Amino acid sequence: MNSDQRPIGVFDSGIGGLSVLKHLVRMMPNERFVYLGDTARVPYGNKSAETIQLYARQCSAFLLQHNVKMIVVACNTASAIALDMLQQNTTVPVLGVITPAAREAVDRSRSGVIGVIGTRVTISTNAYGLAMFHYAGRRHIDVHSTACPLFVPLVEEGLLMHQATKLIAMDYVAPLQANGIDTLVLGCTHYPLLSPLLHDLMPSVTLVDCGECTARSAKAILEDRGALSDSLELHDTYFYITDNTPSFVSLAGRFLGTIVRDPVRVAVDHLVTTDL
Amino acid sequence: MNSDQRPIGVFDSGIGGLSVLKHLVRMMPNERFVYLGDTARVPYGNKSAETIQLYARQCSAFLLQHNVKMIVVACNTASAIALDMLQQNTTVPVLGVITPAAREAVDRSRSGVIGVIGTRVTISTNAYGLAMFHYAGRRHIDVHSTACPLFVPLVEEGLLMHQATKLIAMDYVAPLQANGIDTLVLGCTHYPLLSPLLHDLMPSVTLVDCGECTARSAKAILEDRGALSDSLELHDTYFYITDNTPSFVSLAGRFLGTIVRDPVRVAVDHLVTTDL
Repeated sequence: MNSDQRPIGVFDSGIGGLSVLKHLVRMMPNERFVYLGDTARVPYGNKSAETIQLYARQCSAFLLQHNVKMIVVACNTASAIALDMLQQNTTVPVLGVITPAAREAVDRSRSGVIGVIGTRVTISTNAYGLAMFHYAGRRHIDVHSTACPLFVPLVEEGLLMHQATKLIAMDYVAPLQANGIDTLVLGCTHYPLLSPLLHDLMPSVTLVDCGECTARSAKAILEDRGALSDSLELHDTYFYITDNTPSFVSLAGRFLGTIVRDPVRVAVDHLVTTDL
Repeated sequence: MNSDQRPIGVFDSGIGGLSVLKHLVRMMPNERFVYLGDTARVPYGNKSAETIQLYARQCSAFLLQHNVKMIVVACNTASAIALDMLQQNTTVPVLGVITPAAREAVDRSRSGVIGVIGTRVTISTNAYGLAMFHYAGRRHIDVHSTACPLFVPLVEEGLLMHQATKLIAMDYVAPLQANGIDTLVLGCTHYPLLSPLLHDLMPSVTLVDCGECTARSAKAILEDRGALSDSLELHDTYFYITDNTPSFVSLAGRFLGTIVRDPVRVAVDHLVTTDL
């Protein structure tokens, strides 16, 4: 059996991608990971498509300089806006978070009535809807999407079960509930932290975590290519951030489940796109 | 009497500074203004001091290239972190939003027990407290500050009177009320939009709008220098933004009170610090 000891590259606009990394590490504990959080330019969700594509190219080029065997775009906005472009310009597999979650949602929904929540940019691209319709083929599905722009700041402030968060969440999901969804895609890497609250609001709805689906998909692709590491050691993650934001280390544990040790700052000025 | 027809430069990390510009235009209707919103890198409040200073220098240099007679730093974070540096390196007057509001708060408070709310970075610098103590001199004042990080996204989502905003605001201001403040500085350019809600919560507390105070101060400085425009025409504002973010134009009206016409994009790559 083949193997590949090179690390897996993961990038996000900031901290949310750590909720994807969490599942990647859990499912592939013998892999090495290089994580880049573009904290100097977070959030991507309020930037133009052109700017998001430039940033995604720079992040990917940085990871390729670290000799990664795969790039995981652990950010829904960048996956929605920049994935095709990255895949066309990169020799290693580039995996976004949208396709894996879209497929699992279609497979897990019995009624075919599926909800998607995400940032305003992610929802406006309809990337989840398109991926689901493509995968469902001739099966009839019904997709209802809504943007939940306040969920990211509420999660970052730790108001995971606050009454205010509940009131805002009720406003957001009311139209989805009215449409009778049985499955809801958490289409933003911050949202899994709201799973308990969302489950309370909609106990009969299946919640689909894009990070968990993506990690499963990443492992399957590497397995298929004979490119998993055969190391017997528990491997480590190297963290890079583009700005030493005070909140990164304090919030990181909430997303990753373990402490982020010693993130290394890499200045935005040093990010280039020449390798891509 | 002398006069100066050059425009007044105003910059902010994005849209909040428009609530300052609103008062500048109202008080000096015959002036021309050049407004730069650094929308490609908003928000500044979660960046490191080093990064905020770099961005503030680049914004100021851009305004100086437009031959401005004064720079108004219409952003509390940049005022707290970068004002001294800008003032030391610039020949035109550079005015931040903190000193004007701090002075008015001290003057308007009867009890001397004053509250300050702002973003996490602004509050962590204690810039308002220092400015107030400096101005109060030997008068005893008592300053209580608290960060309200969710107010910016709540305002940008237009939840100005939503029950969730009320619940979050009650959490934020409870310790200030417990300390018996009679005056509250709205130390973030987004917060004036929450004045009605905050007034409902604390009807006996005087709210101090940093933008209004800064505009008054800017006019006084220009008057003192004989540098107001003597044009009899109603002058205009030129808007520049570093990214064409979809929300800028749609939100701008809420902050400025009138429509923002045709903002011109200036790429971040074209911002330099050589003039500063």
